[in-house]
Amino acid sequence: MSDDSSQTPVQSAADGQGQAMWGGRFTAKPAELMQAINVSIGFDRRLAAQDLAGSRAHAAMLRKQGVISSADEAAIQQGLADIEAEMAAGTFPFREEYEDIHMNVEARLRELIGPAAGRLHTARSRNDQVAVDFRLWVRDACRRVEGQLRGLQAALVAKAEAHAETLMPGFTHLQPAQPVTFGHHLMAYVEMFGRDASRFADAAKRMNECPLGAAALAGSPFPIDREATARALGFDRPTANSLDSVSARDFALEALADATICGTHLSRLAEEIVVWMTPQFGFIKLTDAFTTGSSIMPQKKNPDAAELVRAKVGRLLGSFTQLSVVMKGLPLAYSKDMQEDKVPTFEAFDALELSLAAMAGMVADLEPVAARMAQAAGSGFSTATDLADWLVRTLDLPFRDAHHVTGAAVKRAETLGCDLADLPLSELQALNQGITADVYDVLTPRASAGSRRSYGGTSPEQVRAQVARWKEMLK
Amino acid sequence: MSDDSSQTPVQSAADGQGQAMWGGRFTAKPAELMQAINVSIGFDRRLAAQDLAGSRAHAAMLRKQGVISSADEAAIQQGLADIEAEMAAGTFPFREEYEDIHMNVEARLRELIGPAAGRLHTARSRNDQVAVDFRLWVRDACRRVEGQLRGLQAALVAKAEAHAETLMPGFTHLQPAQPVTFGHHLMAYVEMFGRDASRFADAAKRMNECPLGAAALAGSPFPIDREATARALGFDRPTANSLDSVSARDFALEALADATICGTHLSRLAEEIVVWMTPQFGFIKLTDAFTTGSSIMPQKKNPDAAELVRAKVGRLLGSFTQLSVVMKGLPLAYSKDMQEDKVPTFEAFDALELSLAAMAGMVADLEPVAARMAQAAGSGFSTATDLADWLVRTLDLPFRDAHHVTGAAVKRAETLGCDLADLPLSELQALNQGITADVYDVLTPRASAGSRRSYGGTSPEQVRAQVARWKEMLK
Amino acid sequence: MSDDSSQTPVQSAADGQGQAMWGGRFTAKPAELMQAINVSIGFDRRLAAQDLAGSRAHAAMLRKQGVISSADEAAIQQGLADIEAEMAAGTFPFREEYEDIHMNVEARLRELIGPAAGRLHTARSRNDQVAVDFRLWVRDACRRVEGQLRGLQAALVAKAEAHAETLMPGFTHLQPAQPVTFGHHLMAYVEMFGRDASRFADAAKRMNECPLGAAALAGSPFPIDREATARALGFDRPTANSLDSVSARDFALEALADATICGTHLSRLAEEIVVWMTPQFGFIKLTDAFTTGSSIMPQKKNPDAAELVRAKVGRLLGSFTQLSVVMKGLPLAYSKDMQEDKVPTFEAFDALELSLAAMAGMVADLEPVAARMAQAAGSGFSTATDLADWLVRTLDLPFRDAHHVTGAAVKRAETLGCDLADLPLSELQALNQGITADVYDVLTPRASAGSRRSYGGTSPEQVRAQVARWKEMLK
Amino acid sequence: MSDDSSQTPVQSAADGQGQAMWGGRFTAKPAELMQAINVSIGFDRRLAAQDLAGSRAHAAMLRKQGVISSADEAAIQQGLADIEAEMAAGTFPFREEYEDIHMNVEARLRELIGPAAGRLHTARSRNDQVAVDFRLWVRDACRRVEGQLRGLQAALVAKAEAHAETLMPGFTHLQPAQPVTFGHHLMAYVEMFGRDASRFADAAKRMNECPLGAAALAGSPFPIDREATARALGFDRPTANSLDSVSARDFALEALADATICGTHLSRLAEEIVVWMTPQFGFIKLTDAFTTGSSIMPQKKNPDAAELVRAKVGRLLGSFTQLSVVMKGLPLAYSKDMQEDKVPTFEAFDALELSLAAMAGMVADLEPVAARMAQAAGSGFSTATDLADWLVRTLDLPFRDAHHVTGAAVKRAETLGCDLADLPLSELQALNQGITADVYDVLTPRASAGSRRSYGGTSPEQVRAQVARWKEMLK
Repeated sequence: MSDDSSQTPVQSAADGQGQAMWGGRFTAKPAELMQAINVSIGFDRRLAAQDLAGSRAHAAMLRKQGVISSADEAAIQQGLADIEAEMAAGTFPFREEYEDIHMNVEARLRELIGPAAGRLHTARSRNDQVAVDFRLWVRDACRRVEGQLRGLQAALVAKAEAHAETLMPGFTHLQPAQPVTFGHHLMAYVEMFGRDASRFADAAKRMNECPLGAAALAGSPFPIDREATARALGFDRPTANSLDSVSARDFALEALADATICGTHLSRLAEEIVVWMTPQFGFIKLTDAFTTGSSIMPQKKNPDAAELVRAKVGRLLGSFTQLSVVMKGLPLAYSKDMQEDKVPTFEAFDALELSLAAMAGMVADLEPVAARMAQAAGSGFSTATDLADWLVRTLDLPFRDAHHVTGAAVKRAETLGCDLADLPLSELQALNQGITADVYDVLTPRASAGSRRSYGGTSPEQVRAQVARWKEMLK
Repeated sequence: MSDDSSQTPVQSAADGQGQAMWGGRFTAKPAELMQAINVSIGFDRRLAAQDLAGSRAHAAMLRKQGVISSADEAAIQQGLADIEAEMAAGTFPFREEYEDIHMNVEARLRELIGPAAGRLHTARSRNDQVAVDFRLWVRDACRRVEGQLRGLQAALVAKAEAHAETLMPGFTHLQPAQPVTFGHHLMAYVEMFGRDASRFADAAKRMNECPLGAAALAGSPFPIDREATARALGFDRPTANSLDSVSARDFALEALADATICGTHLSRLAEEIVVWMTPQFGFIKLTDAFTTGSSIMPQKKNPDAAELVRAKVGRLLGSFTQLSVVMKGLPLAYSKDMQEDKVPTFEAFDALELSLAAMAGMVADLEPVAARMAQAAGSGFSTATDLADWLVRTLDLPFRDAHHVTGAAVKRAETLGCDLADLPLSELQALNQGITADVYDVLTPRASAGSRRSYGGTSPEQVRAQVARWKEMLK
Repeated sequence: MSDDSSQTPVQSAADGQGQAMWGGRFTAKPAELMQAINVSIGFDRRLAAQDLAGSRAHAAMLRKQGVISSADEAAIQQGLADIEAEMAAGTFPFREEYEDIHMNVEARLRELIGPAAGRLHTARSRNDQVAVDFRLWVRDACRRVEGQLRGLQAALVAKAEAHAETLMPGFTHLQPAQPVTFGHHLMAYVEMFGRDASRFADAAKRMNECPLGAAALAGSPFPIDREATARALGFDRPTANSLDSVSARDFALEALADATICGTHLSRLAEEIVVWMTPQFGFIKLTDAFTTGSSIMPQKKNPDAAELVRAKVGRLLGSFTQLSVVMKGLPLAYSKDMQEDKVPTFEAFDALELSLAAMAGMVADLEPVAARMAQAAGSGFSTATDLADWLVRTLDLPFRDAHHVTGAAVKRAETLGCDLADLPLSELQALNQGITADVYDVLTPRASAGSRRSYGGTSPEQVRAQVARWKEMLK
Repeated sequence: MSDDSSQTPVQSAADGQGQAMWGGRFTAKPAELMQAINVSIGFDRRLAAQDLAGSRAHAAMLRKQGVISSADEAAIQQGLADIEAEMAAGTFPFREEYEDIHMNVEARLRELIGPAAGRLHTARSRNDQVAVDFRLWVRDACRRVEGQLRGLQAALVAKAEAHAETLMPGFTHLQPAQPVTFGHHLMAYVEMFGRDASRFADAAKRMNECPLGAAALAGSPFPIDREATARALGFDRPTANSLDSVSARDFALEALADATICGTHLSRLAEEIVVWMTPQFGFIKLTDAFTTGSSIMPQKKNPDAAELVRAKVGRLLGSFTQLSVVMKGLPLAYSKDMQEDKVPTFEAFDALELSLAAMAGMVADLEPVAARMAQAAGSGFSTATDLADWLVRTLDLPFRDAHHVTGAAVKRAETLGCDLADLPLSELQALNQGITADVYDVLTPRASAGSRRSYGGTSPEQVRAQVARWKEMLK
């Protein structure tokens, strides 16, 4: 039974009329209730391709091991090919009476090829079958997302390269703190999404063991070759314990945790886009592609896509939470509770893949309003730290004294209504005689950003070095 | 756009072939991406009935207030009735290009009745429209669930009445501690579900304020009558602040929290059913209606329905988590993030309503194996506490001394290989001379349970008193 | 054992040296491990006052019912009073060897008054004792928070009254949409916190049943008077089922859910404060009381308190999640898992109470920068909707036509580089001849806000009406 | 300010008296509120060792790069050594007025060595300082846990080796399904904990980049050598983007996710221990080391430690949830919200490390009751699958026919009141003439388990092979 009952006409009607959903509630026949809660074909049909692949590999192995005949295998392979064609054509008859994807395929195979279909289930059980199907799906989803993350990184790197010198304020507490470059800011997300991608890669690798052959839970007395089926399905090796094979869902939990962490990063960039898009900030422009407007307020650019990406982390954490709760305290081996693993995983990856695609689109689309950013980068005595650092570095003042002088200079500038860079040298020398005209080299936002040349710093040369490093890595 | 993209043929194909989901990822056109992330008609069509009801009430009020003409109202009401009929007949043309349910209805209305349709949107905005639709849906869902809970309580009360005297062990730490009655155990859940029902009732009452008329966010300059629309839609009153009206989703959060708490109760009873159904416990029997078996192991009764109910609390907490995360840190008033409120709420209520129906079915279906329960209730010196209490009560021993004597008696019984009730009086008197034959009145499980007559205790008379109280309340 | 092991010197040392925490890990003696995981006195000492109150009520009842003598009761009451004095003086000897608060009090009572102490535990168990202690704590916490919420509302109402006419932009998608008043914006939070307070009140009321007398799980054979102890402790009535009494923790879950929902509201206001405090917005000022700065950047006002309040919702949802997971699937009656109920609850209320106090302080402290707000309220053709509404209302144009005219007017104003209110009448009449000079009455932000006089709208008169209503309710 | 306010005497008193916590609530002075919410020394003192290590590495690097003099460095190193000694001796004066651990150390250093202390903060900020401290702590915690997991695996492997042949029922749906060996069951957890350990290893490796040198957010204009400090602190390399360095907390999120997943595994084994310890199952015995009892019910063995381990996954998921919520939507770079990263992380690792130690203790302590397990393994026609498999394998019956014959055989055995292995050959041959006496080789539980020799199967030889593999890997 699918959690997503929005597909059932019965329910829509019920909602519409404010009536009870489950057939008049307690007058519902137990059989219908059991059907409603138990059937999974509504959502596990998304495992169809994986199920067919697993069956093909299993049949080939059974034949090689002499468990079934060549003729039977040929019939099975043909039947599975026919089923695949039916699915591609949309003519496969999914039936609720067969509960899940495995039984639907098996029943259809029997219709197509007769008794030989029964041989396919030798040395196999629905428990290891669903385990292999779902694991294949999650592994492939992790790989898709890893690819998307690389694409998003590429979009960020390209934009960062174009703006390695574009100034903007670096914020702490959403208060301007020091000038940075827009390229540097974007490269911070390249690092985050790079770690996200490596997490998905680790997860895909760790889960890449094949549970097929674990049978119901204890392994099989047939002379099966688990290495062979593992290889055929692209796994690194078979799983090493049959009970664990049908009981474990930590591979899905890990994928959902990685998705959640990635979602927090997406939500941060999305929040920044929302804030930067306000007329008050006015730091960036997005085209109509990712915003909505109002027919009568043409200047209103609602960053809908960014807001939706920001929200999607809710779904991701919700899915991780859901599956963690499902698995809490479950004894070995298979319990029916575990049927609740698929919907949250499917939904999480749908949300994540969509968010990544939308974010990559927005990053490519957005253009900074350099003048607004630069103006903001230079306001608020944002180079005060640079003055203090200069005093320490050049005049060897202790940090504390340097801060004292700087505070006085800022106060003086405030009084005179000018920026630090506009203070006459005499004013600065009145605070410390050692100050020379060289100091002005650090007092503009551009000089400030340019001076931060430590590894990973915001200076354009450092940003370009990181851009180059990532372009190489993303090749 | 729907989170549930399993309905889109594109995606199913993509899944099936292990390809990227969003049209080759970054080659996807922005317009398609925006469509994919932005469109909500896939899920908010479940608000169709609410949307029509809101429009009807709004149109009637506009006419009464003289904002629109009688002719226009008549046309609008007729058009809305036609749309309702189309929906009932399944012929309403839902179209993705119109994004959401509100626009779909509005566009169709224009097709049906022409320019008068435009008058309906006077003094209204999609922001207050979706707020009223969703609030109506959640309120009605809370009321449905409250009704289901009353039904589940009734099933428990009926079963409890039948088993007011059926003995079973009362457990702590899943270790037998003291004899109780099965009826008493079931009545514990009646209390829990009673509080759950009262929580849903409180939530439905608190949210029963009508946001219609808040317009986009600031209220309306038209002479609207918000009391009238509130009344027409069954609300107690209009909301008192227009910004809050379109920004608040705490009504949904409260409903989801109540659902989660109810889900923990369901998971506890479900866990007990699973444990009781093991051959090791063998405390209850469920018919095939709520179990699945094996064609070759006829004695195997897998409590699938109970396991699925146990798992569903994951979905419920997942939904509460999701919406809490969505709402965290959102500035007023409407942000697009809030579009992510509906799917988790729909899914949670689907899961909860199904769980409640299945649990009510199981409660009605289950039968205790009284002999197994009674045997377990009497083992393990389960009346040791009763002996200690008798010594305190009858001989006025201090608690600590009573415990000392009791420990010695249990040890003696263990040595003799008998139960406490089978110890000869002489043995007991050897431990304390004051002990009389009256003591045997408390040493059997039945006597033990029967003696706990304090209010809310496990004695059959107390159980029956609670049964009577609840039957009255559930009338 | 306390989750909060930061108090144990052993651990601090271990952390400091990067060594294993638990005494060399697997060489740790089982007894020490068991002690470490099992002992709760580190955190349940916070229940001391509740434990003493429960014991006093129980002793008085036992005496009235003739279960213990007057002399014994007198000794017990004196001993408990002495213990309370020791606790107040900080001289009470908390000892880990006595595991929890109940045993610590009981052991100390025995030292103080001798064997009579043993009588206190008659007809009582640690299971109902901890249930009553914790319930009292949670109930009182709910009431404290309800009081704090009323205080926060009062602060908001006072500020709203002062700014019933202060204009600011009303936002959707964090884009200015329509002019509102600052008072109206603050009153939106008064509504939210009002619902929060009513949730805590409901929770406190629902949980206000006394579990004392449930004993271990089955009730008591002693002639106890549960009504009497319930009354003495301020409960409305005794609980009605002894198993439920010692097994239920939904009262704490409900309180934590209410706290989480309240936390989302706090996080929204906190986010707004953070955004408003940026130099880009510059909408409000906070004094140094709730901000931190930099010695060299005097203009930098970091809204630390707001940021911390925004973050605290994490703790609240974390606590609700934790306890939900703990309770999932627990069979009746008491399981040791339930010992994990207290730390998340204590921590959540600490976080919430602190957040509410800080937010009330910030609300009282903040001052709007009216000029900035007003300027922002008037920019971006924010009265375009007002023009459209005027055309509908005055000229009876259909909504769609009104929008067309308005769009053209905005375009014209954009071309001329002026605001809507500055467009010559001739320009407007060129778009629709029916437009008269009256239209200017709605084209300023003040006129716009002032015109939204529907119930709950943003007009100053509506804001003042709501202020008056709430001042009455908060009396 | 510490979330853990249980340490403040003020609060304990307040709780005790049911009064408001924060000094009379709204009369509290803003300064006190700000102090209460802002100060972190109550919990970040756990970072003391990391903070000192970071400062030592920074000072050495500054001197090598010529930024500070040798004399200054010597003074700083001496001062830091003195502070370390004070901390070890418990004499270090932690002071709330200095807010956090960094300021406490800095202030004390100034007291000890005078103005040279001021040089230490050159080219450094509290933002990169706390980032490096916390990262060191989390990295070391991951490594500690990895070590503990290896120890727990070793305990499981040792127990599995001893019970490679001990029969028990393999369960699905908590219903006996097929005979397995106890060793095999335990080895399933070895696989799970092995993956958990590899996750922590991956996390520790991924986070092993040094943020020191990122300064406030933009990097430093001083000629610092970030490679040198990274190396000195055991990091693989410096972080590559200064904004990311001070903004990222995904390393902690990943560690918490890994902890949560590990916690689900622990909760499953803990649940099994609780179930196995019931008298109904009676599968294992635990000594008093990990159970609690009752003075008057000597046979009662409450598995408290297992229950507490089962519950701790709540804390772990709660902490992951908390930090995810904190990080959601935070703009770059540092926001004060991030101060809420430490308490959930500390608490989660305390809970996890304690759980792992307790579980390792329990595994070493538990002994199976082989007779009970074996009896349960053989009941319920648990070898029906073996009969069906034999028919397929030996007689080449299609699966479906084999199931038909098996079902009939079970029915016959049920009628005769015997087990499958006790059915006369004639009875079996009546169902299928091809059946020979060889069939009895698969009909006992031992034969069943022994026959499942596929890789990773439950046969003793497979179990021993996995034991050998793991013993090698855990060396």
